[in-house]
Amino acid sequence: MSESRPAGQHTVRRHNSALVLGAIAESPGISRAGVAARTGLTKATVSTLVDRLVSAALVRDAGPEHRAGPGRRGTSLSLSPTGPHGLGVEIAVDYIATCLVDLTGEVRWSQVREADNRDRPAGRVLARVGTAVRDALRHATELSITVGGIGVAVPGLVEASSGLLRRAPNLGWHNVDLPAELSKRTELPGVPVLVGNEANLAALAELRAGAPADFVHVSGEIGIGAGIVLGGELYDGTRGFGGELGHFPVSSRGPVCSCGARGCLERLAGQEAILTRAGAADPGALVERLEAGDRAASAAVRSAARWLGTALSSVLNLLDVPTVVLGGTYARLYPWLHEPLRAELQARVLSAPWASIEVRRSALGTEAAVRGAATSVLRSIVADPDTFIAARTA
Amino acid sequence: MSESRPAGQHTVRRHNSALVLGAIAESPGISRAGVAARTGLTKATVSTLVDRLVSAALVRDAGPEHRAGPGRRGTSLSLSPTGPHGLGVEIAVDYIATCLVDLTGEVRWSQVREADNRDRPAGRVLARVGTAVRDALRHATELSITVGGIGVAVPGLVEASSGLLRRAPNLGWHNVDLPAELSKRTELPGVPVLVGNEANLAALAELRAGAPADFVHVSGEIGIGAGIVLGGELYDGTRGFGGELGHFPVSSRGPVCSCGARGCLERLAGQEAILTRAGAADPGALVERLEAGDRAASAAVRSAARWLGTALSSVLNLLDVPTVVLGGTYARLYPWLHEPLRAELQARVLSAPWASIEVRRSALGTEAAVRGAATSVLRSIVADPDTFIAARTA
Repeated sequence: MSESRPAGQHTVRRHNSALVLGAIAESPGISRAGVAARTGLTKATVSTLVDRLVSAALVRDAGPEHRAGPGRRGTSLSLSPTGPHGLGVEIAVDYIATCLVDLTGEVRWSQVREADNRDRPAGRVLARVGTAVRDALRHATELSITVGGIGVAVPGLVEASSGLLRRAPNLGWHNVDLPAELSKRTELPGVPVLVGNEANLAALAELRAGAPADFVHVSGEIGIGAGIVLGGELYDGTRGFGGELGHFPVSSRGPVCSCGARGCLERLAGQEAILTRAGAADPGALVERLEAGDRAASAAVRSAARWLGTALSSVLNLLDVPTVVLGGTYARLYPWLHEPLRAELQARVLSAPWASIEVRRSALGTEAAVRGAATSVLRSIVADPDTFIAARTA
Repeated sequence: MSESRPAGQHTVRRHNSALVLGAIAESPGISRAGVAARTGLTKATVSTLVDRLVSAALVRDAGPEHRAGPGRRGTSLSLSPTGPHGLGVEIAVDYIATCLVDLTGEVRWSQVREADNRDRPAGRVLARVGTAVRDALRHATELSITVGGIGVAVPGLVEASSGLLRRAPNLGWHNVDLPAELSKRTELPGVPVLVGNEANLAALAELRAGAPADFVHVSGEIGIGAGIVLGGELYDGTRGFGGELGHFPVSSRGPVCSCGARGCLERLAGQEAILTRAGAADPGALVERLEAGDRAASAAVRSAARWLGTALSSVLNLLDVPTVVLGGTYARLYPWLHEPLRAELQARVLSAPWASIEVRRSALGTEAAVRGAATSVLRSIVADPDTFIAARTA
């Protein structure tokens, strides 16, 4: 590649590479001719770009298409399972999760370590995160996996423009520069680090796992977050701070929250509120009691369902999306949660008599956020393959 | 126009007409060459289409461009002020408004009639609406104005797919087919009737009047509605029912609402709640008292501001939009409302310490909804000029 070419040509190739890779991502098994028809590029241009994407291990050429009818067979192109992987990390209040996901969405390796991260100094938690990431990188090396980037899911407000974690109320963190901290601790200066809110990343993963084009994903953990998907795209606000559902004021008589307000949803329908009310030590014990028909346990879940329904009915009245996806701990509690929640929504959403509301269980449960973190890395590679190729050959 | 042409050609021309008219709408003063560059169509195609749009009075060709520099002068194209007008109607709880707006956004005529429409039989109110519309049509004829369609703003839930007004709580209406009712009463079977929620249409009008690309418009009248604009587009939900803010449950101890729930925003921060608390007969009297420094009046507005802030902070936490536009009666109360509202948002919106929130006064005030209703007609003509042309020549 000559450096004397005008900048314009790089820009055009960059744009066209993304077009071609996007077409292949959307239609696995597509031929070169199919890509040309779809993108409006010439077959010659498509062939050159595909060859480059194949040699960068972003695309797999699986040989002749299997199809009936006359005409020359094209070869079948798809995203490569042996190309760059996304390394996902979730820093939760009570665990650290990591995973390695390939471009086709397959999870190649994953790990969850319990950890009490609440109100610990950020440095101590980041040391644990560093250990977990280095461990994931070691497994990547063993499995001959190239890591294309690290995606980090955090239970807090992440500024899209800077990647700065502005505030994580349940961790007690303020203004943590995670990309810088992780680069320092993993000694991988060339690997991009993308940071996002856990609820938004969970919604992204659910979208990839087959959720419909318009939904609100609610992840119930220690905190409660929402991820909004409109028209098949994650909507996280003009600055990345969208989806904060945990501090919806649902009861003016409710308990005081760490945010300073009173009666926030999190204090009334979060995991801890349910466990306390049910007298259960952890979600596993709660589920056992629910299965045994314990009264206190089911009353605790019904109460949470009603508060959650109060907040979600406001969301549906505002956004008119037809589907609520229950994730995180709510996915585990789905069998007991969904009926009282649906009843509350049916009573409070003004359009409910004519516009159906679906409450469904998350496909990924508590794994959604870490999966979404890895997916965010892969999404950024597919959106701009040339930056990945340039970094690899630098 | 021959009927033997293949359907495909009509479809292509229809698409290209919309492209050309859209380019002219976005860049008033553009030349034919400019339109060609912008749309990717040939100059010959653009010229043919522009000529057709000019003869349908949708586009005005103002003659040679005034610009410096070399090269042949193009002629300056813009939307025509003498083409079809939108007839806007707003059916409010306490008035009926009508207006005639041209394609450039100029209001050529408007009228507001006070009326007590609450809990009246729909037929009686529709008779008044019919009278108001016929009156507007008479003025259109006097002013030699072509009416391209009737847009109707209503304080209720309108189903986008059918145009059916499903429910208007403050009017007491259910399932009213306004397009059919108005066509019957105005005897204009060929004129399209578009129905929309008043808060959404008000937001659309504010967007056209210069509001930024991302905002929530709150119209405080008897009811309270929101219109959401994201990325320069009105977002009204998957079925058109979005923007319902009036029934946000802000106080679990609040009064019972007409919707059946308790402590809805409308009951605590709506126009009637403010007037009752202030002991004022109408918004005019309230403003007089506020200007005179009356304590009860300012306490009533401060209380409404706090409740409004509680609900709006949830909206901003969810959507992360940087701007709140206060419309309707709230626009009149802006000088007294905006400081306590801003303080409440600053305290409750989690990202407020790093992400600024702007509270601004609506440019159009109580006129926004009827203006938006007329705009919706013009927007549909610009989006599909061929349907308008075909109807005109049928």
